[in-house]
Amino acid sequence: MQTMDTIRNGVETEQMYGTLDAIKAQPELGIFQFRARNHWIEGAHNRSTIDHFYGAGQEDTSREQPFVIDAGEPAILLGTDTGANPAEYLLHALAACLTTTLVYVAAARKVRLTEVESTLEGDMDVRGALGLSDDVRNGFTQIRATFTVKGDAPPEKLREIIERAQQRSAVFDMVSHGVPVTVDLVDA
Amino acid sequence: MQTMDTIRNGVETEQMYGTLDAIKAQPELGIFQFRARNHWIEGAHNRSTIDHFYGAGQEDTSREQPFVIDAGEPAILLGTDTGANPAEYLLHALAACLTTTLVYVAAARKVRLTEVESTLEGDMDVRGALGLSDDVRNGFTQIRATFTVKGDAPPEKLREIIERAQQRSAVFDMVSHGVPVTVDLVDA
Repeated sequence: MQTMDTIRNGVETEQMYGTLDAIKAQPELGIFQFRARNHWIEGAHNRSTIDHFYGAGQEDTSREQPFVIDAGEPAILLGTDTGANPAEYLLHALAACLTTTLVYVAAARKVRLTEVESTLEGDMDVRGALGLSDDVRNGFTQIRATFTVKGDAPPEKLREIIERAQQRSAVFDMVSHGVPVTVDLVDA
Repeated sequence: MQTMDTIRNGVETEQMYGTLDAIKAQPELGIFQFRARNHWIEGAHNRSTIDHFYGAGQEDTSREQPFVIDAGEPAILLGTDTGANPAEYLLHALAACLTTTLVYVAAARKVRLTEVESTLEGDMDVRGALGLSDDVRNGFTQIRATFTVKGDAPPEKLREIIERAQQRSAVFDMVSHGVPVTVDLVDA
């Protein structure tokens, strides 16, 4: 029977242990595929639609409606602020993944959190992306994430949890180490 | 005088050339810093706020209101679908950046686009992020981006433009090659 006791940091820990056991027993349930479809609207304005994904052995169609996410650029970068810019979305992805991983790790370690806040900064010399210099990279040269974490555990334990979150976060891994990306033009 | 002629693909090309000339003349104007603040709400639900940034020699406060972006996880990953998940936001960031870069490159090369669509897929074995296996990575093993691009140029030219977009996209660079990330705990 589900009781309040099994919910920690908003995470159903019984369900979490059940999911972990199921994937341990049948490793192929761990295979996931996430997707985004994007279409250009005008200038720096484009929109992604995110809905179904594959996971746990089947196509997951449980989301009742898609997430619709607009991107843009500020005026100085020739847009009209129709959304955060792509580099800012990457910072959001990283902050969100570190935070969720941290919350799940804390739930597994029986730590009740009261606050998790973070600020991320990314430094970029836009001469790279604008094609004005081959001496600077296109993307951020450095990202700094600064966390405030509070809960019913001593600072050392909270520090351990944030370290474990870095070791397990999917987006931290991707942004730190890179991912092979193929880009194909299918229709022109 | 601004005329309709200077707007191509929704990009003010006169402004674009002006920006490029200004940064060429004064390279320090190319220094930017983007930021995201994130706070945890409950379980897999957290929210980023994105507003001011530094660029072109000053703090840019021109955005009238911040962008507020919610993240979540689907039920199978212990969330309640309060937003796309962090790995999906990374796909959105990549799709958006490749698209905007492509649109700007086309504008600079005097190509009028009529359609840019893309589908991105990322493959992940969640045993990594769930801490069930050290033999698989936490993030995507592979990302595939598939584009449809149409405009008033032959397919070879559109292909050149998408190749140039890959060479200049900030997020493509970051996701392909990785970025040094530091994570600090300032208050616990």
